[in-house]
Amino acid sequence: MRIIGIDPGSIITGWGVIDKTGNTLRHVDHGEIRPRKAAALSEVLTFIHQELSSVIGQASPQAVALENIFYGKNVRSLIRQAQVRGLVIFTCAHHQIPVIEYSPLEVKKAVVGYGRAEKTQVQTMVKVILKLDSLPTADAADALAAAICHANFQKEQLL
Amino acid sequence: MRIIGIDPGSIITGWGVIDKTGNTLRHVDHGEIRPRKAAALSEVLTFIHQELSSVIGQASPQAVALENIFYGKNVRSLIRQAQVRGLVIFTCAHHQIPVIEYSPLEVKKAVVGYGRAEKTQVQTMVKVILKLDSLPTADAADALAAAICHANFQKEQLL
Repeated sequence: MRIIGIDPGSIITGWGVIDKTGNTLRHVDHGEIRPRKAAALSEVLTFIHQELSSVIGQASPQAVALENIFYGKNVRSLIRQAQVRGLVIFTCAHHQIPVIEYSPLEVKKAVVGYGRAEKTQVQTMVKVILKLDSLPTADAADALAAAICHANFQKEQLL
Repeated sequence: MRIIGIDPGSIITGWGVIDKTGNTLRHVDHGEIRPRKAAALSEVLTFIHQELSSVIGQASPQAVALENIFYGKNVRSLIRQAQVRGLVIFTCAHHQIPVIEYSPLEVKKAVVGYGRAEKTQVQTMVKVILKLDSLPTADAADALAAAICHANFQKEQLL
């Protein structure tokens, strides 16, 4: 089974693709989508849609794992992230890939073993689990962690 | 100039189209997009994208007027609305129509004259301004009010 994890954000959208064969996880690819900093929201959303469509087209994942939004942010950045998240969910649905949602707690538990892990611990554990040569960036690591989480839990509840 | 106003929501997305010729406003059409109540978010977003694309295709507006999000809601409904809003902005950008954002205060001032107006006052004034036969629903009235607001102010700041 091929899984893509996505960490939506208006500044950086991280993504990571893994394969699960039996109990073995294999890293396929990961990266970041970074719209132009001065871009208007219309352009940001269009750019993320295009880039993500291209990633999905190349990787052909069978499922998308997405963290749900962490509420402990200020309202402005919460709204910005939610707007991108809506577009990301639409883009996955447009490519007819089921989207499964996990809480930040579930994702951290899946890679670090407990829910209060720091970002750097997530990066380190993702590197170890997927036998990467170097530390993935924080956003790509979060995306890979969501994919690992889905590989382990395989919830069926669709978003 | 033809303007569409949109009031995004996960339960009801209101829309309203008007024409401005000189200083005269003319009502063209309005309606509501209502996804299936039990639908998953993927389906809600796909449905709104399809319906809105069809409305835009028929009306061929030159500008979209959108209220920005009212912060005084609970976080959960704020996130749901923002996710739909992101999809709506993407859909308009996809059809290459500029999106202009107005605050709820600006929109209410444009139709009722002051910013603290009740929903029913907005509906009544929209009916009067556009010479409608009957009261538009609250969501369609909000959308038409945003369109009237853009017809009057014509801000150029794009979203």
